[in-house]
Amino acid sequence: MSNLKHILEQVQTGQLSIDEAVKQLPAPFEVDLGFARVDTHRKRRRGLPEVIYCPGKTCDQIVEIVKALLASGQDVLATRASEEQFGAVAESVPTAVYHRDARIVTVDCSERPVPSGLVAVVSAGTSDIPVAEEAALTAERMGARVERVHDVGVAGLHRLMKHVPLLKSARAVVVVAGMEGALPSVVGGLIDRPIIAVPTSVGYGTGLNGLAALLAMLNTCVPGISVVNIDNGFGAGVAAAMINRTSDVDPAG
Amino acid sequence: MSNLKHILEQVQTGQLSIDEAVKQLPAPFEVDLGFARVDTHRKRRRGLPEVIYCPGKTCDQIVEIVKALLASGQDVLATRASEEQFGAVAESVPTAVYHRDARIVTVDCSERPVPSGLVAVVSAGTSDIPVAEEAALTAERMGARVERVHDVGVAGLHRLMKHVPLLKSARAVVVVAGMEGALPSVVGGLIDRPIIAVPTSVGYGTGLNGLAALLAMLNTCVPGISVVNIDNGFGAGVAAAMINRTSDVDPAG
Amino acid sequence: MSNLKHILEQVQTGQLSIDEAVKQLPAPFEVDLGFARVDTHRKRRRGLPEVIYCPGKTCDQIVEIVKALLASGQDVLATRASEEQFGAVAESVPTAVYHRDARIVTVDCSERPVPSGLVAVVSAGTSDIPVAEEAALTAERMGARVERVHDVGVAGLHRLMKHVPLLKSARAVVVVAGMEGALPSVVGGLIDRPIIAVPTSVGYGTGLNGLAALLAMLNTCVPGISVVNIDNGFGAGVAAAMINRTSDVDPAG
Amino acid sequence: MSNLKHILEQVQTGQLSIDEAVKQLPAPFEVDLGFARVDTHRKRRRGLPEVIYCPGKTCDQIVEIVKALLASGQDVLATRASEEQFGAVAESVPTAVYHRDARIVTVDCSERPVPSGLVAVVSAGTSDIPVAEEAALTAERMGARVERVHDVGVAGLHRLMKHVPLLKSARAVVVVAGMEGALPSVVGGLIDRPIIAVPTSVGYGTGLNGLAALLAMLNTCVPGISVVNIDNGFGAGVAAAMINRTSDVDPAG
Amino acid sequence: MSNLKHILEQVQTGQLSIDEAVKQLPAPFEVDLGFARVDTHRKRRRGLPEVIYCPGKTCDQIVEIVKALLASGQDVLATRASEEQFGAVAESVPTAVYHRDARIVTVDCSERPVPSGLVAVVSAGTSDIPVAEEAALTAERMGARVERVHDVGVAGLHRLMKHVPLLKSARAVVVVAGMEGALPSVVGGLIDRPIIAVPTSVGYGTGLNGLAALLAMLNTCVPGISVVNIDNGFGAGVAAAMINRTSDVDPAG
Amino acid sequence: MSNLKHILEQVQTGQLSIDEAVKQLPAPFEVDLGFARVDTHRKRRRGLPEVIYCPGKTCDQIVEIVKALLASGQDVLATRASEEQFGAVAESVPTAVYHRDARIVTVDCSERPVPSGLVAVVSAGTSDIPVAEEAALTAERMGARVERVHDVGVAGLHRLMKHVPLLKSARAVVVVAGMEGALPSVVGGLIDRPIIAVPTSVGYGTGLNGLAALLAMLNTCVPGISVVNIDNGFGAGVAAAMINRTSDVDPAG
Amino acid sequence: MSNLKHILEQVQTGQLSIDEAVKQLPAPFEVDLGFARVDTHRKRRRGLPEVIYCPGKTCDQIVEIVKALLASGQDVLATRASEEQFGAVAESVPTAVYHRDARIVTVDCSERPVPSGLVAVVSAGTSDIPVAEEAALTAERMGARVERVHDVGVAGLHRLMKHVPLLKSARAVVVVAGMEGALPSVVGGLIDRPIIAVPTSVGYGTGLNGLAALLAMLNTCVPGISVVNIDNGFGAGVAAAMINRTSDVDPAG
Amino acid sequence: MSNLKHILEQVQTGQLSIDEAVKQLPAPFEVDLGFARVDTHRKRRRGLPEVIYCPGKTCDQIVEIVKALLASGQDVLATRASEEQFGAVAESVPTAVYHRDARIVTVDCSERPVPSGLVAVVSAGTSDIPVAEEAALTAERMGARVERVHDVGVAGLHRLMKHVPLLKSARAVVVVAGMEGALPSVVGGLIDRPIIAVPTSVGYGTGLNGLAALLAMLNTCVPGISVVNIDNGFGAGVAAAMINRTSDVDPAG
Repeated sequence: MSNLKHILEQVQTGQLSIDEAVKQLPAPFEVDLGFARVDTHRKRRRGLPEVIYCPGKTCDQIVEIVKALLASGQDVLATRASEEQFGAVAESVPTAVYHRDARIVTVDCSERPVPSGLVAVVSAGTSDIPVAEEAALTAERMGARVERVHDVGVAGLHRLMKHVPLLKSARAVVVVAGMEGALPSVVGGLIDRPIIAVPTSVGYGTGLNGLAALLAMLNTCVPGISVVNIDNGFGAGVAAAMINRTSDVDPAG
Repeated sequence: MSNLKHILEQVQTGQLSIDEAVKQLPAPFEVDLGFARVDTHRKRRRGLPEVIYCPGKTCDQIVEIVKALLASGQDVLATRASEEQFGAVAESVPTAVYHRDARIVTVDCSERPVPSGLVAVVSAGTSDIPVAEEAALTAERMGARVERVHDVGVAGLHRLMKHVPLLKSARAVVVVAGMEGALPSVVGGLIDRPIIAVPTSVGYGTGLNGLAALLAMLNTCVPGISVVNIDNGFGAGVAAAMINRTSDVDPAG
Repeated sequence: MSNLKHILEQVQTGQLSIDEAVKQLPAPFEVDLGFARVDTHRKRRRGLPEVIYCPGKTCDQIVEIVKALLASGQDVLATRASEEQFGAVAESVPTAVYHRDARIVTVDCSERPVPSGLVAVVSAGTSDIPVAEEAALTAERMGARVERVHDVGVAGLHRLMKHVPLLKSARAVVVVAGMEGALPSVVGGLIDRPIIAVPTSVGYGTGLNGLAALLAMLNTCVPGISVVNIDNGFGAGVAAAMINRTSDVDPAG
Repeated sequence: MSNLKHILEQVQTGQLSIDEAVKQLPAPFEVDLGFARVDTHRKRRRGLPEVIYCPGKTCDQIVEIVKALLASGQDVLATRASEEQFGAVAESVPTAVYHRDARIVTVDCSERPVPSGLVAVVSAGTSDIPVAEEAALTAERMGARVERVHDVGVAGLHRLMKHVPLLKSARAVVVVAGMEGALPSVVGGLIDRPIIAVPTSVGYGTGLNGLAALLAMLNTCVPGISVVNIDNGFGAGVAAAMINRTSDVDPAG
Repeated sequence: MSNLKHILEQVQTGQLSIDEAVKQLPAPFEVDLGFARVDTHRKRRRGLPEVIYCPGKTCDQIVEIVKALLASGQDVLATRASEEQFGAVAESVPTAVYHRDARIVTVDCSERPVPSGLVAVVSAGTSDIPVAEEAALTAERMGARVERVHDVGVAGLHRLMKHVPLLKSARAVVVVAGMEGALPSVVGGLIDRPIIAVPTSVGYGTGLNGLAALLAMLNTCVPGISVVNIDNGFGAGVAAAMINRTSDVDPAG
Repeated sequence: MSNLKHILEQVQTGQLSIDEAVKQLPAPFEVDLGFARVDTHRKRRRGLPEVIYCPGKTCDQIVEIVKALLASGQDVLATRASEEQFGAVAESVPTAVYHRDARIVTVDCSERPVPSGLVAVVSAGTSDIPVAEEAALTAERMGARVERVHDVGVAGLHRLMKHVPLLKSARAVVVVAGMEGALPSVVGGLIDRPIIAVPTSVGYGTGLNGLAALLAMLNTCVPGISVVNIDNGFGAGVAAAMINRTSDVDPAG
Repeated sequence: MSNLKHILEQVQTGQLSIDEAVKQLPAPFEVDLGFARVDTHRKRRRGLPEVIYCPGKTCDQIVEIVKALLASGQDVLATRASEEQFGAVAESVPTAVYHRDARIVTVDCSERPVPSGLVAVVSAGTSDIPVAEEAALTAERMGARVERVHDVGVAGLHRLMKHVPLLKSARAVVVVAGMEGALPSVVGGLIDRPIIAVPTSVGYGTGLNGLAALLAMLNTCVPGISVVNIDNGFGAGVAAAMINRTSDVDPAG
Repeated sequence: MSNLKHILEQVQTGQLSIDEAVKQLPAPFEVDLGFARVDTHRKRRRGLPEVIYCPGKTCDQIVEIVKALLASGQDVLATRASEEQFGAVAESVPTAVYHRDARIVTVDCSERPVPSGLVAVVSAGTSDIPVAEEAALTAERMGARVERVHDVGVAGLHRLMKHVPLLKSARAVVVVAGMEGALPSVVGGLIDRPIIAVPTSVGYGTGLNGLAALLAMLNTCVPGISVVNIDNGFGAGVAAAMINRTSDVDPAG
């Protein structure tokens, strides 16, 4: 917004003609690569740099976007990156790091800040771990301290119970589950923290690639649980980190 | 089968011509009312008399089927009966009883046997009670002793926990739940008895009239749970009672 | 947990036998009304008393649950209440208040606390207001200060723009929309606050009673948006209020 | 139709017997290849030669249809052509051109006319470009001048804003988007030109291979937007070009 | 846009402080009724005043919006209006007219312009007429000359054939059909005009309230057909009128 | 077609100008009622007069179409007629007959021909009878001798078995079933006659208003079974009667 | 049935004990291969030998079933056979023939009978030919004379028109179409023969792998059309051949 | 439960501090492998050791879980194991056995007990055998005697009939079918034993990967049939074995 203010000030002082101002306004916000307009102001506007979703992009496209982000001084977070896509990035940018569990590539421009608060990431089964790790790493990249609790599905509730105190001390809890998607409801019945539920495509037949888990989560009898797209660990990580940050910056404090 | 044997014996001894035998075979099995063929052998064949599903039948049709069943010496069980349908039956058959909670009409021809074994019927919420009662009463009509545990949904797990010993002592457990349908999975993780899960149409929006609960139950991560149609308390009651009876008659013992 | 601790202490000191302890444990948590087990500990466990979802309950059932909650010293929040259901409650509990826009009945046991923080509730069209009001009133009952911004759908983006500063100052934003469900994405592109999106059943044809809006929200290209069930203003209000409260009580601070 | 008139005239003048006329009528309209009846009159009837949809056709079949079209003096447009299919065509017809971005093969019989009017093609993300290019090239082949605006999705609205004047000067606008499919609604709220929305299969999980985007577009709160099949850039290009041509030939002028 | 320019000019000349300018910008565009923000600039921006979609609005709300539109000098078009809703409007605004076939209420502020161009509206069966009339009347309100051709479904193709010359002379053709939705494809095979297809909910069983017709239209083998929501005669009328107007105002001419 | 020939002959002999011929061609095929174009040639073209599908038509519209059909010498068959719609027809046309079971109104212009061949109509349950009767009466109106076999569902196979010889002697068999839709497969496994399967909307929950039965029928492991829309007894009756007539008129004999 | 009679006669004359008769009854009907029970009586019972559906069967399984059928004197028809599966059969049974277009393997035990009657097979597009050929070859194997009409979809109706006389002379017509599935309705409006419609999976996006075409066919406004499963050319061929045979054997004559 | 008692006793006698007790409680129930928490108490709690579902797990993960189970003295059952996954297990644990038909790996720690009771497993077609074998082997591993009846689908009912006495002597019957899923209903009409129906993904087109069969089974008109997920032979085997065991241990006897 202060950008808008600056331009308006130039207009006010006559440094800028109106026609020029109209053209200039969006210019500093993006780098036009032809196939992509890299949003270099997103971190300022949204608290998170533009993130690269790798599926459907060529290695060349990813490398160019990575370079444009770095050139504008932003950290890089590339999700669902294949080994091959990481290889292409690493060739151009040797400081790139591949987080295999989370299928994420990161590059740091600046030192990482000290993590704050606490986000807990809970997963129901071994096969849900890649999605849970995507959530955890994303939240960490956005400044949150993160604790992971894996493989605590409802078939053996006692496995979950001993972690309840940890979950109660978190500012936000991400719960990842496939199949019948019951874990967020059970966790939600035990704690009073905001819960982001992530359905996964783990399952078969009437699991319908995660739709059954999604529907269960949307229809939870426990209020205070909200849901993101199937396998969308990234989105859940962002949501949890935004909640976590609220206590730090408290906009309404 | 013994019926078939009898006719074959008559054929063997020449008491019956072949052409006559062909015509006679199905005859004793049904009473033809024009609009319905009442299956008067079903109890012998299936252990349960033909049951009247009331929706879509006129009062007159129901009354005539009731009379045909009674005339062939069978007890009556009419499900999803409205007050009006019960009224019509009661006018013709004053001994008819209306079980309002379960929406069931019964008429007894003979004394009820002493109930045996144990079927437990568990429900998640107050709105699930009609379906749960349909299951419970049906199982009772088929000879089972039945215990009910209502309103123990996953939003407050402690409500369920104190009933676990009862559930462990049952031969079969019916679990009724709408919304996210998580209760059967949670119960299944705690006991080792056969579970029949009944999804209900309780809920709204993406509950899709019970489809969300059904999918959750079919995708349970707890093995040994099987599922019936949405709101089909009757079917669950029959399935549980059949399991319950197995220990009494033990066909493979 | 302190409840559990207390019982364990009694066991340790011999004041309580083990068998007795097992029986007692869930007892203080619920009031058994036969058709319902009122969860009188939920506020302590979840930060919110048990809420009465009125559809599918009789007036008598609602009145009895209201009385049980009041008797245990808890405030009452009854959602989706009809005029008739409110009338029945008001007859027994004259201090009951009907919030017609939000279809909610409330009864207060104690003085309302001073609202804290800020939750913003944004709606796309006039027909979305009942769901938005349900969210707003629920969040207020849970202690949040709430600001409403109605009828700012994407067909006229300028209507939304002037409220952006307000939205940026909220700890959480609830965005309510039916039809194509695009509003949360557009709001999300402009601010960096946690967003709870609520699809509504407003629309027709391929709107599929809110499924189209739900799918749009789940597939948003803007990260940090999470979604609740169709028309679930209550759930969104709880989620937003939980986030709002996090800054007050900061569990991980 | 003038064809029909000609035959009727021959009938009138006795040059043609009635039986012969019946047989002849469709004859000049098609070339029968056995596996395909090439519609050589479609350009006259529909303003566009028959187009070859390549998936599910063998290389041989495509080459034969290309030759039949060229032999009847029609330009060739073959959509969704693979590299291999292009190779086969190029071997027989060296003047064939492969437009890789749009996955289209063209062969020109005659000089291309000067483009007229203006069709704008807007896409939300980098992954939507192949569909957008299919639309753009198709419209160009049908005589329209085309401008492209890529990667202007709703996560960064400012990227779109500076192109609004261009969109307002077009006779028709094609808007291509996957995921939540919100871009056509946002564009539609800003301009008063006919919009053809094209959902793409870009996305995952509840994106349901483009169904979520399709539903959002069909349920837009902005009137004047119509929709084509998922990934159907070709159909959108034809529709936009037909609108564009209307101003040139103005049938109702 | 000229509005924006005016404000910027005031800023440039110092007549307006920057803070003031930010607040003012959206102000003149809307009238805030509390439950609705009437978009009084939509006609200037979109070529069509804000239209009132009546379902889900109270009579009082509709009357207030009607008055706000008239007060700002805009014509009124209210769709899907019931008899009762019309009655309420007519009481306040005696010049209101009810078009019963189209379920539309109109009020004119100014003289209607002479209709231009030609839009043809074709319907498959008698039950499709209300949707077809909604399209036809909407297009007329937006300045188009409209011709109607009703009940020409594919079960008797000859009924359609004699109207082909009329359809060929239109700038845009709206085709309305329920059941199997084949009519737009058949019309599209015969003419070279832009076609807007409208599926209707006419049918039963697997018609799925219009989804079958919608899918058929989206999957047409005839390019150049685009589709609107089920029963959305209004949207089709706007789309056709926008195309029709293109030849009059020719933005790219 | 002979109609077409006649017009062509007039053109050949100069009795008719070409322009006149073009206009005349469809004329004798229809009576234009404004809201409907009654297809008075359908019986000649299709072997069945145009049939009136009553839902969604006003009483006045139905009466006018009935009169137009009678005026052109065609028998009347009106399906899904309500009592009220029949009343309106009977007032104008006292010879109208209401077949309540089949929800059909008929009026005869001429004497009914002697029925030929044999169509068997089989139904699974009492609630399927209205659809089965619609099929039976329709086939009778098209000249077939019809035998009905009601209430022979798969829960009691012996009820079906004694009717197998009858089914084997039919030229076509219509099988009507709701719920799991298994009856056509079972019948199909026993006989070698063409089977038209009709799913009905009888059932609840996952019956999905007949979709479950439809899917079962389409996926039958028994070849030679084809399927019509849910509850479409009329369509099945026409299909069976067409097959029945084939043996009488044998086009390929 | 005569088989049953024979056994009963033996029972009557004492040649067979009752216990023996019960065991014997199904025996001659099948050859048990362990993994399959080859139904060697199906031709007698259903007029068609058991057909081998190849997908999901190993080459060894197919070869063994082929041999069992030949050993019992039945002709072989194996559908959806891959090249590899044909190779395996041909190695063991050198007289096996592969019909590549139809993906069918046949082996003849006896001389083929003279074809009778007429079945017409119509397809909409080049990609529909494999399904159409499966239908055509199946009908031929069942004794029908077959005529094929390929690539006559609704985008160019004139291509279809000249074949109408052929279609009118058939005893049954199979119509194969993908995409919008409109062709059966259009054909049905022109002729009075029984039509079996076959939806194909040709198409993309909202074609939903043939569901769109299926729904269009089920919702046809033309009565007398029945439908088989998607891509089920085999089933359509059997249904058409059964109708064709009816005129030869006329069971009800 | 006795575990809980033991800890409470230690608390009572002062051997254990309360804080320690809280930590200890879940500890002996699991072995934490990092990526998985192996539930080593499940056999005691559920009568069945934790089972390894192989899809989505790496060979290394499977091997580690196998070892952890064996180390705690539990038998191993690993379902849906590929050849490669078996190879990895066999390398570490040479006593591992691969049941290829059932795609199951087993390792025995102790001698297998004598099988008891009887579970019958019935399948409709050759392609359903893998699912049926998974059910059969699972039930055997849980102590049941199992009889298999393959390839007895409804297209040839006589194949099923001779096995009815066997099915009547079982304590539970598993019925496996794809396509139209009619077999459980037909079996259910003939016997009075509890039936677990398993839909398979065998079929194509509208079979919808097993959904059609699932829906048929859920909508059966025969009560007492319950259903598991598509292709879930394992779950059906567990459910049947639990029923089978009920007669042995009779909890309610």
